[in-house]
Amino acid sequence: MAETQMPTARTRVVREADRAVYDREATYRILDEGFVCHVGFVAGGQPFVIPTSYGREGDSLYIHGSAASRMLRQMNDGVVVCVTVTLLDGLVLARSVFNHSMNYRSVVVLGKGILVEDAAEKLAALRALSEHILPGRWDDSRQPNERELKATSVLRVPIEEFSAKVRTGPPVDDAEDYSFPTWAGVVPLEMKAGAPISDRRLLPGISAPEYIQNYSRNR
Amino acid sequence: MAETQMPTARTRVVREADRAVYDREATYRILDEGFVCHVGFVAGGQPFVIPTSYGREGDSLYIHGSAASRMLRQMNDGVVVCVTVTLLDGLVLARSVFNHSMNYRSVVVLGKGILVEDAAEKLAALRALSEHILPGRWDDSRQPNERELKATSVLRVPIEEFSAKVRTGPPVDDAEDYSFPTWAGVVPLEMKAGAPISDRRLLPGISAPEYIQNYSRNR
Repeated sequence: MAETQMPTARTRVVREADRAVYDREATYRILDEGFVCHVGFVAGGQPFVIPTSYGREGDSLYIHGSAASRMLRQMNDGVVVCVTVTLLDGLVLARSVFNHSMNYRSVVVLGKGILVEDAAEKLAALRALSEHILPGRWDDSRQPNERELKATSVLRVPIEEFSAKVRTGPPVDDAEDYSFPTWAGVVPLEMKAGAPISDRRLLPGISAPEYIQNYSRNR
Repeated sequence: MAETQMPTARTRVVREADRAVYDREATYRILDEGFVCHVGFVAGGQPFVIPTSYGREGDSLYIHGSAASRMLRQMNDGVVVCVTVTLLDGLVLARSVFNHSMNYRSVVVLGKGILVEDAAEKLAALRALSEHILPGRWDDSRQPNERELKATSVLRVPIEEFSAKVRTGPPVDDAEDYSFPTWAGVVPLEMKAGAPISDRRLLPGISAPEYIQNYSRNR
């Protein structure tokens, strides 16, 4: 495992430093609960931020690259990226406007994204990405053929320079505000899956598999 | 209204161009349903992507700046940013691995973030931000004092150069895959609010206000 001294000057949490998390295990729990990241890269001096799906395999992130064609076109030996994953857990309502906040868990990974060229690694990466999002689905699907594999690009980003930030719990008000007569507390937020909607062209006799019944990201 | 010819070369959707949306009204509906954006900026050649809350007021985005202190320290006459808002609507399960997708709506705004310096505009911007996230909450809270206003930074980003991308509907498989015997369809995803959790130091006789009962982002 390539371990970078954490935090680096670039990943040290400056604002609200008490919310910082630098250990790998806690960071991976956040990365494993999420499955959509926001990838930042620079082209012509302009930052771009693109949402895309990802998976984690060991100490690497695998990012579905087709959404980031703009990024991939400019790269030869890798592209400098920032991969950010954010999980939103709640609105925090304090007595004062100023102390309103959100409960969240977020991870920032800085590094170089490398295009996965080797066919076997690419297949393994796509499988890892699929299993990350929806465990069990890969084996139930028609497998990728050579043409599809070629048409798919995957980026590998090593998880070496990273930090996480977490806020949990109730609002924290200034001492003199606790007598202010308003409701205060937390409105929990969670991404929930609804009932699966079967495709109209579904073959008869096929029902929704177990892995999408009660789909949840809670790990 | 400052109208930029849409799309520009930088905001033209390259991949899956059929999912592109360039009209302002549809873009604003997405911006108004979301309330957490990912702001990208460049510092020392490295892109950074930071999640933060935002509001929209007319043709401007107001971004809570305290989360982006790294960004604000480097700016004098504005900082070049990319503001991305992503709403996740579902997992799209096709018969083939290759045609798996997600239903989503996302907006990318490119522009220059300007620090709001005028005290009156800053107060109005914070109110807009608050009303965007939780309409009605501002008036129920202890108002910001001068010290708090000074300690809060707000960025204004004009919505001039932008694009949106939307995928909806069922999976689309290759013709020959419709006979592949697996379940296919959509697992809808939605961010849901749970029951409000009252702060333990709540004054007696205060119940959760109407604006957080059944809180929803559906607009």
